[in-house]
Amino acid sequence: MLDFPIFDSRHARHAKLTDLRSDTVTRPTDEMYARMREAPVGDDGLDGDPTVQALEEAVATMLGKDAGLYVPTCTMANLLAALAHTRRHEQVLLESNAHMFATERGGSLLAGLAYTPIEGKAGAMDLDRIEAAVRPGSYRIGVGLIAMETSHNNAGGAVLPLTHMQDVHEIARRAGVSVHIDGARLMNAAAALEVPAATLAQHSESVSLCLSKGLSAPVGAVLAASEAAIATAKGYRKMLGGTQRQAGIMAAAGLEALQTMSKRLRDDHARARVLSTRLNDLGASFAAGEPQTNIVQVQVGGTGMPSHQWVRALAEFGVLTRPWGEKVIRCVTHRHIDDADISHAVEAFAQVFEKRGHA
Amino acid sequence: MLDFPIFDSRHARHAKLTDLRSDTVTRPTDEMYARMREAPVGDDGLDGDPTVQALEEAVATMLGKDAGLYVPTCTMANLLAALAHTRRHEQVLLESNAHMFATERGGSLLAGLAYTPIEGKAGAMDLDRIEAAVRPGSYRIGVGLIAMETSHNNAGGAVLPLTHMQDVHEIARRAGVSVHIDGARLMNAAAALEVPAATLAQHSESVSLCLSKGLSAPVGAVLAASEAAIATAKGYRKMLGGTQRQAGIMAAAGLEALQTMSKRLRDDHARARVLSTRLNDLGASFAAGEPQTNIVQVQVGGTGMPSHQWVRALAEFGVLTRPWGEKVIRCVTHRHIDDADISHAVEAFAQVFEKRGHA
Amino acid sequence: MLDFPIFDSRHARHAKLTDLRSDTVTRPTDEMYARMREAPVGDDGLDGDPTVQALEEAVATMLGKDAGLYVPTCTMANLLAALAHTRRHEQVLLESNAHMFATERGGSLLAGLAYTPIEGKAGAMDLDRIEAAVRPGSYRIGVGLIAMETSHNNAGGAVLPLTHMQDVHEIARRAGVSVHIDGARLMNAAAALEVPAATLAQHSESVSLCLSKGLSAPVGAVLAASEAAIATAKGYRKMLGGTQRQAGIMAAAGLEALQTMSKRLRDDHARARVLSTRLNDLGASFAAGEPQTNIVQVQVGGTGMPSHQWVRALAEFGVLTRPWGEKVIRCVTHRHIDDADISHAVEAFAQVFEKRGHA
Amino acid sequence: MLDFPIFDSRHARHAKLTDLRSDTVTRPTDEMYARMREAPVGDDGLDGDPTVQALEEAVATMLGKDAGLYVPTCTMANLLAALAHTRRHEQVLLESNAHMFATERGGSLLAGLAYTPIEGKAGAMDLDRIEAAVRPGSYRIGVGLIAMETSHNNAGGAVLPLTHMQDVHEIARRAGVSVHIDGARLMNAAAALEVPAATLAQHSESVSLCLSKGLSAPVGAVLAASEAAIATAKGYRKMLGGTQRQAGIMAAAGLEALQTMSKRLRDDHARARVLSTRLNDLGASFAAGEPQTNIVQVQVGGTGMPSHQWVRALAEFGVLTRPWGEKVIRCVTHRHIDDADISHAVEAFAQVFEKRGHA
Repeated sequence: MLDFPIFDSRHARHAKLTDLRSDTVTRPTDEMYARMREAPVGDDGLDGDPTVQALEEAVATMLGKDAGLYVPTCTMANLLAALAHTRRHEQVLLESNAHMFATERGGSLLAGLAYTPIEGKAGAMDLDRIEAAVRPGSYRIGVGLIAMETSHNNAGGAVLPLTHMQDVHEIARRAGVSVHIDGARLMNAAAALEVPAATLAQHSESVSLCLSKGLSAPVGAVLAASEAAIATAKGYRKMLGGTQRQAGIMAAAGLEALQTMSKRLRDDHARARVLSTRLNDLGASFAAGEPQTNIVQVQVGGTGMPSHQWVRALAEFGVLTRPWGEKVIRCVTHRHIDDADISHAVEAFAQVFEKRGHA
Repeated sequence: MLDFPIFDSRHARHAKLTDLRSDTVTRPTDEMYARMREAPVGDDGLDGDPTVQALEEAVATMLGKDAGLYVPTCTMANLLAALAHTRRHEQVLLESNAHMFATERGGSLLAGLAYTPIEGKAGAMDLDRIEAAVRPGSYRIGVGLIAMETSHNNAGGAVLPLTHMQDVHEIARRAGVSVHIDGARLMNAAAALEVPAATLAQHSESVSLCLSKGLSAPVGAVLAASEAAIATAKGYRKMLGGTQRQAGIMAAAGLEALQTMSKRLRDDHARARVLSTRLNDLGASFAAGEPQTNIVQVQVGGTGMPSHQWVRALAEFGVLTRPWGEKVIRCVTHRHIDDADISHAVEAFAQVFEKRGHA
Repeated sequence: MLDFPIFDSRHARHAKLTDLRSDTVTRPTDEMYARMREAPVGDDGLDGDPTVQALEEAVATMLGKDAGLYVPTCTMANLLAALAHTRRHEQVLLESNAHMFATERGGSLLAGLAYTPIEGKAGAMDLDRIEAAVRPGSYRIGVGLIAMETSHNNAGGAVLPLTHMQDVHEIARRAGVSVHIDGARLMNAAAALEVPAATLAQHSESVSLCLSKGLSAPVGAVLAASEAAIATAKGYRKMLGGTQRQAGIMAAAGLEALQTMSKRLRDDHARARVLSTRLNDLGASFAAGEPQTNIVQVQVGGTGMPSHQWVRALAEFGVLTRPWGEKVIRCVTHRHIDDADISHAVEAFAQVFEKRGHA
Repeated sequence: MLDFPIFDSRHARHAKLTDLRSDTVTRPTDEMYARMREAPVGDDGLDGDPTVQALEEAVATMLGKDAGLYVPTCTMANLLAALAHTRRHEQVLLESNAHMFATERGGSLLAGLAYTPIEGKAGAMDLDRIEAAVRPGSYRIGVGLIAMETSHNNAGGAVLPLTHMQDVHEIARRAGVSVHIDGARLMNAAAALEVPAATLAQHSESVSLCLSKGLSAPVGAVLAASEAAIATAKGYRKMLGGTQRQAGIMAAAGLEALQTMSKRLRDDHARARVLSTRLNDLGASFAAGEPQTNIVQVQVGGTGMPSHQWVRALAEFGVLTRPWGEKVIRCVTHRHIDDADISHAVEAFAQVFEKRGHA
């Protein structure tokens, strides 16, 4: 249950808030604050910060990679991966709705890379199209990297099958191209598949891991890869302005997140399934699917009311969601969403739907 | 006095450490930790974080600008300023030893801008060369921004005279070009001139302010400028991967730094002067100048021993410094350097010098 | 009939060559050589070249634009259009098989632009997808330009319907975005539609016109647009290294091409139709479609022999073609292809097919 | 003597024109036209053009390099060299007044490279500054290329001493950095030193050679380098839009230029010396130096009349020159300047000077 102030005057009237907008709204736990207070710190721009190093090692070990690099955001981690694995003027292949393409593509212009969208299903790129794209052509600019995203944000939290990841990695290997995993919600994917994160990470040369979504750390992400790739990424982190000094304070929260938060993600997934089931039950004009992780995409196209109007109407009940295009509302479960919140949300949907029916 | 562990095995032997390498090593105060614990937080990538907003407003107000933007580092603030004030394929003029040129120039390649070095004295660009550079030429790419740095790191913490800043701003105004101030150590410059920071900032369209050097916040910087420039910078912050979620925790330390640390910078300056005077007294082969702020550049060329050997020899006494080219050692005073540290440092210099004399 | 030496030892054995690889192989006419000899020339990098200026004006007038700019290639004309119509870090929308995307995309990396493929049919982008792409989004980088290609190379020389061009231009106008036409084969499209080229050009803010394909000039292209866009393009032409001195010599051939070659393009189109009809007649496993202009895409997938083997087999008969992916052979008619060449080509196809059948 | 029309209405009144603005105004010889007419041509964007290949081989052989690449301009040749020898985000060191820096620097922004000016004398970079620039630094972006220019346009046609070229090459070799020679006027430098061009070229990994200045070809340049560098450059030539089809026509003029024009450059140099001597004799307020090649920089600062007024006054006498900053006029001798033109020019200078004296 969300009890902290929301800074959006629109919602001020309602006593109880259920914030399903994103798992990025999660605040640190008390234990995180305690570790932030106690962490030894150094100068990560000089000879290093011990807590940052501890976090980098912990993530690298967990993912089966040689080294890690702490960065302010997962967006920066993904951009550094693109820079670390490519040479000048190459392509990066991405699923056409991947976050790195749909939202982070501006970074490709800073990096001088061409992000190429590959059509797919449920977040999984079509393998034939990947094959065609990596085939050398006299006129074409080469492919330097293929990036996968799991769980896949715009595909409603879909989890890539391990066999798909293996297939992509194999195509890449044969073409001499690296693979990166955008792990903004990697731990959700691992939890859904009931495998260690390293099982996913093995099908890649690098992985970004976001600490501030479901894992609840306030900020930060880690890029894990080979020593050489991390060394290159570290130089670019400096260029981008991502090298912070006493970053150990944030890294301390990240370590706590890593050690204690991963295991509770299946609770978020369970609540997402409850939410979707109950929304599906509300009537034929709703379609909330069967979420694999903590994201529920509610298709409201059938109700005749556009998504942003739905979002506004739900907010009147203290239920915060986000429009995802004109016909979809996105709801995300996380640490601040308990069973009562799910009921609160379902009730709000029902009431808006009923009102709408009467209109 | 520095009492926290230094993570460099080389120095492990010595009981007492005097870390003059940089003011970036400063750790947060207890008050900062307390405010970090209590700060209300939101989602700075969604509808905002109240503590971040409070910090942005506080810096903007202090500097007489319309708006502020919190960023992970001053390097990113400077890069965002370059992007916010220019159009595609323009030049940014900088003093040839400015930190933005000497150290942050890689960012220009990400931004697609040409950083042009302008020769100067004591960190102040030659005005005639600026005039020549902004003059339109049929072949030349245009100038979009002129950046000044005060206090000036590579010029030994030199402070730009207010009349110089006014002159540069006037040339820029006539040429229709913006001015940015790299304020990595802006508060040191203001303290040295005994003027409010806004008096310096008035000669610019934007200012970056670093919170994590002498001001002792663990991380972070703020860019202050017009509403329009900040809106552009905010879009680019997203592209660079600098948009963090519960950033209010760090911003809380920044607010504390702003409110309580500025006034103690003159103590650092006084100790830098004591250090330089006592080093100058050691003999003719030393020249430590008369520092204006908290940076002492010790010319050791006359001793016949290269700077990196000096640095290693001083470290044996637990005095940490940095080579600045082959003939200069840089010493920086800060919150963890007290009078005893200064004596400790002078004594170490004297002993190394004596040993060296006997060699 | 092709009577000049082909510099590919592979084909040396065969007495008679029919070169259907591309209309780029066309050599200058005697009249072009004569005009090249007599043209007054100046210095196009200094105060101008009179013949270049005459060509630029002739093209601008023909296309109903304010000004023209001579460039070495149509690729450069297209790149200059992208630079002239956009601001930093914007998108250019292109049909997903457009030459500017499939082959010239490397230029986008030099320009710092994001070329975005839009799915389409017969070279015409899906209008809904354009609408979606130009809609502003908080995260997305903006769209600065939409580019169409007519006739469309990879769509087998398909000609965009005028209504489609008008629709695209109208969407662009409402979104405040410019439209460019890649006119590598603009005169073929105009000939096919039996309208003046200006009727096509009116649905755009700029047009490139290639002089060295069906028009038979040895080299060169012209970009036509507004005075302001051409001034910007001229600055970038200098940066790219496209500003030549006594360019009037080549421009003279271009003027001749413009004045005398456009009218004969319908002969090429007629021969392309004859070729396709006769190939379609050869049997069910061939599909050569109904070409609108001078490009015939022969689907050989049904024969079970991959395209590059077909190309090699046809070359044994002195018929030069090009593989276009694994299942298509591209044949292009032009000034050096007469009726006998068409028969020669059809016979070669028939014989290869027969042999293949016996295999 | 210049007998072709100049397309600048301002000068139309004067019967006799002496065009000293640049050697870029030179028109093709009759022999060049003849060879352009007869040259076998192919498709340089497909399987090659025999005359282009002949020119590329001729230049490569002359300069002692493995391979050559024909390009529309020397500006493009220099840009391709920068791209061929560097990796992403590197520096190119250039003398601070080099044409590649002063005039072609925009290309660095397209290439994503940082052109770094190195102070020098008479066009020769200071060796210590080169040494300092190539020294690795943890923060600095690396150096990928050092470029020299000889003869040096902005240094008044100064020729780099062979020992200097050797020294630069040696520093580069030790640092693992390539060297490029901007040979816009390489043959002038070779003529002045009375050595084969290969003697200069040996101190480099690549050389650009302009065919359209003193050598009088209408357009074009060749880049000569290793096979690998040329292969890379060829890919980038396509990206930049520099790959032309029947380019053999222009290459034919280039071959003629190479074979017959180099030897007459010393006549241009002799006339430049006569011009400078006679201008020096005119009085103390002139300083025309002692030109090494075909460029005479006339210092008119002492006359109190700014250079652009001088240029306008000389034009009234039919003598065309160019202002080079406010105090210098640049005069360039070339194939269309004979002894009578030199006398004509000196007389014009004398008359303007006299009038000015009376004013």
